[in-house]
Amino acid sequence: MTFARFDRYVDRHARNFTERLQALCRMPSVAARGTGMRAMAEAVEQMMQRVGIGTRAFKMGAGYPIIYGECGGGPETFLVYGHYDVQPVGHLTDWSVGPFAATIVDGKLFSRGAANSKGDLVARLAAVEAYQKTVGKLPVSLRFIIEGEDGLGSQSLYRFTTQHPELLVARGCIWDEGYRDTKERPVISLGFKGITFLELRAHGARSDLHSKWGAIVPNPAWRLVQALATITSPKGVITIDGFSSHVAPICEEDAEALKAIELDEAGLKKEFRIGGWVRAMKGPALVKEHIFGPTCTICGIQTGHTDAGAKTVLPSTAMARLDFRLVPDLTPDLVQRLLRDHLDIRGFKDIEIIELGSAPLAKAPATSLVARAVIGPAMEVYGMPPLVYPMDPSSGPVGAVCGVSCPPTPVASFGISYAGSNPHGPDENVRVDDFLQSIKFIGRVINSLGETTSEIRTRTSGITKTSGIRERKAAAH
Amino acid sequence: MTFARFDRYVDRHARNFTERLQALCRMPSVAARGTGMRAMAEAVEQMMQRVGIGTRAFKMGAGYPIIYGECGGGPETFLVYGHYDVQPVGHLTDWSVGPFAATIVDGKLFSRGAANSKGDLVARLAAVEAYQKTVGKLPVSLRFIIEGEDGLGSQSLYRFTTQHPELLVARGCIWDEGYRDTKERPVISLGFKGITFLELRAHGARSDLHSKWGAIVPNPAWRLVQALATITSPKGVITIDGFSSHVAPICEEDAEALKAIELDEAGLKKEFRIGGWVRAMKGPALVKEHIFGPTCTICGIQTGHTDAGAKTVLPSTAMARLDFRLVPDLTPDLVQRLLRDHLDIRGFKDIEIIELGSAPLAKAPATSLVARAVIGPAMEVYGMPPLVYPMDPSSGPVGAVCGVSCPPTPVASFGISYAGSNPHGPDENVRVDDFLQSIKFIGRVINSLGETTSEIRTRTSGITKTSGIRERKAAAH
Repeated sequence: MTFARFDRYVDRHARNFTERLQALCRMPSVAARGTGMRAMAEAVEQMMQRVGIGTRAFKMGAGYPIIYGECGGGPETFLVYGHYDVQPVGHLTDWSVGPFAATIVDGKLFSRGAANSKGDLVARLAAVEAYQKTVGKLPVSLRFIIEGEDGLGSQSLYRFTTQHPELLVARGCIWDEGYRDTKERPVISLGFKGITFLELRAHGARSDLHSKWGAIVPNPAWRLVQALATITSPKGVITIDGFSSHVAPICEEDAEALKAIELDEAGLKKEFRIGGWVRAMKGPALVKEHIFGPTCTICGIQTGHTDAGAKTVLPSTAMARLDFRLVPDLTPDLVQRLLRDHLDIRGFKDIEIIELGSAPLAKAPATSLVARAVIGPAMEVYGMPPLVYPMDPSSGPVGAVCGVSCPPTPVASFGISYAGSNPHGPDENVRVDDFLQSIKFIGRVINSLGETTSEIRTRTSGITKTSGIRERKAAAH
Repeated sequence: MTFARFDRYVDRHARNFTERLQALCRMPSVAARGTGMRAMAEAVEQMMQRVGIGTRAFKMGAGYPIIYGECGGGPETFLVYGHYDVQPVGHLTDWSVGPFAATIVDGKLFSRGAANSKGDLVARLAAVEAYQKTVGKLPVSLRFIIEGEDGLGSQSLYRFTTQHPELLVARGCIWDEGYRDTKERPVISLGFKGITFLELRAHGARSDLHSKWGAIVPNPAWRLVQALATITSPKGVITIDGFSSHVAPICEEDAEALKAIELDEAGLKKEFRIGGWVRAMKGPALVKEHIFGPTCTICGIQTGHTDAGAKTVLPSTAMARLDFRLVPDLTPDLVQRLLRDHLDIRGFKDIEIIELGSAPLAKAPATSLVARAVIGPAMEVYGMPPLVYPMDPSSGPVGAVCGVSCPPTPVASFGISYAGSNPHGPDENVRVDDFLQSIKFIGRVINSLGETTSEIRTRTSGITKTSGIRERKAAAH
């Protein structure tokens, strides 16, 4: 079928769709601050209902609600993940425009949350509307799962997946991470690294002391620094005992997929304003490290007095936040156990380790239905072959959502941002053209899901929804 | 002479003197924040004038004014140092009472700045008043030098000492650091460690990035941690190349003085709520380390996201503040040079070192006039021999003030705080009785300065003010 009518609809409603995105962006929904979360959840639910999605808000304890929605009605079901919370804005002075003004400058919509990922949410909903208005009924069932705790470790989503596994039975899952790289290629990911996000704490005197006591009173800041320094080498290699031996060799399919991938090293270095990469890597080695390298990132350290003014104190406590991004076969539990043992054996039993959030990794073969439905239309819409990552270097609760079923629900992920979107930093932005193009792309993906599954149904009749439910329930126990 | 009338005057005016202190404490004067500094400087000047001190405010560039004051008129001149700024309050929630409420609870006056050191300033001025009202004209000239940048590195005071060396010619200097230890002994110090306060900075990408880049983008937080870890050993020994060889052996007089000193280890451990001291030291070794051990204290580290909420970023910059407390023969310049070389040789040339403030050490023999005048009356007022430290483990711009003359002006230091005063932390407080007792003590010190100097003048006529001026001017060039 042709998408001429669909595309014309998107073009005619371009301004209206963009204004919908601006409206959502202007509602601050920083989960870490708790600001505007209720209003945002209601706005998302209304926006979903407006395009004909039946919704239900799941409130899991004290967390922010999961907005669940169903639409379409074909023989197969696909999950569509999104989130309505955004990252904290950081230092206001680092922003060129107000982080919630949703100002459009030179075709770029600047806003915290525009790229990550209100733009994707609005685009997916706009595509559902356009499809129904121009093509007709959706050829498959879509189940939207829109959470509000992406920035908080997705605790409510984890509870939701445990308590409502029946809602997660699906042929595939569409995630919302993705961007156009510096060469404008759309990046599609068929997996995500796992994550375990930890806080390390060292404790000293009951309160900050005058630093004249520095010669004899133990300093938790030094303690923490000495402990941290054993975790990586000066060259940035993770040196936790036993860690590297648990990193699986890259399988042949993945090695093959890696060959198609190149990083725009010069473009990224310019974008990030860095002189070089870790260990002066480049080329295929750099790509391999980026996609299949485990990470241990210091995300933050705080101790003592760090504001303006010369305050010489001996700190009472010191804390560091580390996130580990996990590749096969690392799991959150394993990494935490290895780290604890590593510190204990070096005499750092006093360093406390607190788990802030974790998610297992998720990974799907390129032959899965959802992968084919997403990869297929990319060439038509973007005019160039997509870049398919066997694994996305980012993480999320994908493992929880897709791991309910056994075998795991295959995932494919794409999004509207681009290499300059800076989704966790200041001046987060999306290009309005990318946003509109993504709506056209999603319309085709929905269509392909229907075509692909009907083709499969003809070929293989053994796989039914019923068997899917049984498998899923078993996994949930 | 007896001080019966003097003491009665102090007793009769106890409430009034205490209210004067409360009034100053209620004026926030946090130099690091710049709040209320002008009002505070004016209040100090008025309080000085009220007790008959002729004042002049020296504004050194953009800094907070030095309030200089003269009174008395005997044959010899002594400097009296103080400061009117206070440390930042830190976290308000750590305080039991408002940090500027100056609330008195169980005889303790709680306020940021009460111990460090508005209490000392008010006590010294009250003593001048009481002396003049009950004994008569001061037997010596006192020159007050009250600065407003103790918490900022005393830059204005440094400029003042360079531009007005003629005002600093004196027989001795009374400083404002001192306290009663856990056994209630008044601690008198005849020297201060030097200090150099440095900020180390590491730089990464132009802004905080999504931590999915952790495998390949250099992380300045790791860089800083790895550099810091080379500066001390896990046991807390400073491991900068060549550092320890510049620490002078303790001379015989100092070794003798150390014998009289003991730390109330159990009391301090309880006060600080710590299980033990650095390297499990105790007894004389602990005292020696406290007083003559050089320090390198991490006063603060800040990098990445450390507020509430799980924000996994790869930080753009990382900074640590270190203060080194310097013993003979370490100087600020030497330490900075050694640190730079130490980092460079280990490949950390990228780590920036910024000097936030420095002061040389100051040290005086126990036989100096001012030392004898201060040590003498302590027994009478406090009913127990004072604890005389050949060197105070704290630091300040003593070296700048006392180093203008050559040989350096001898310094003796005492103050009104006690072991529980927590002068740089929350719930800073002084005991009102200590404050009043200190006024009585200072009255006697003023008197002793007169007696001691007249005795000296009889013995040695060769030392004149004129020769002092010549020497000082030479030193100032």
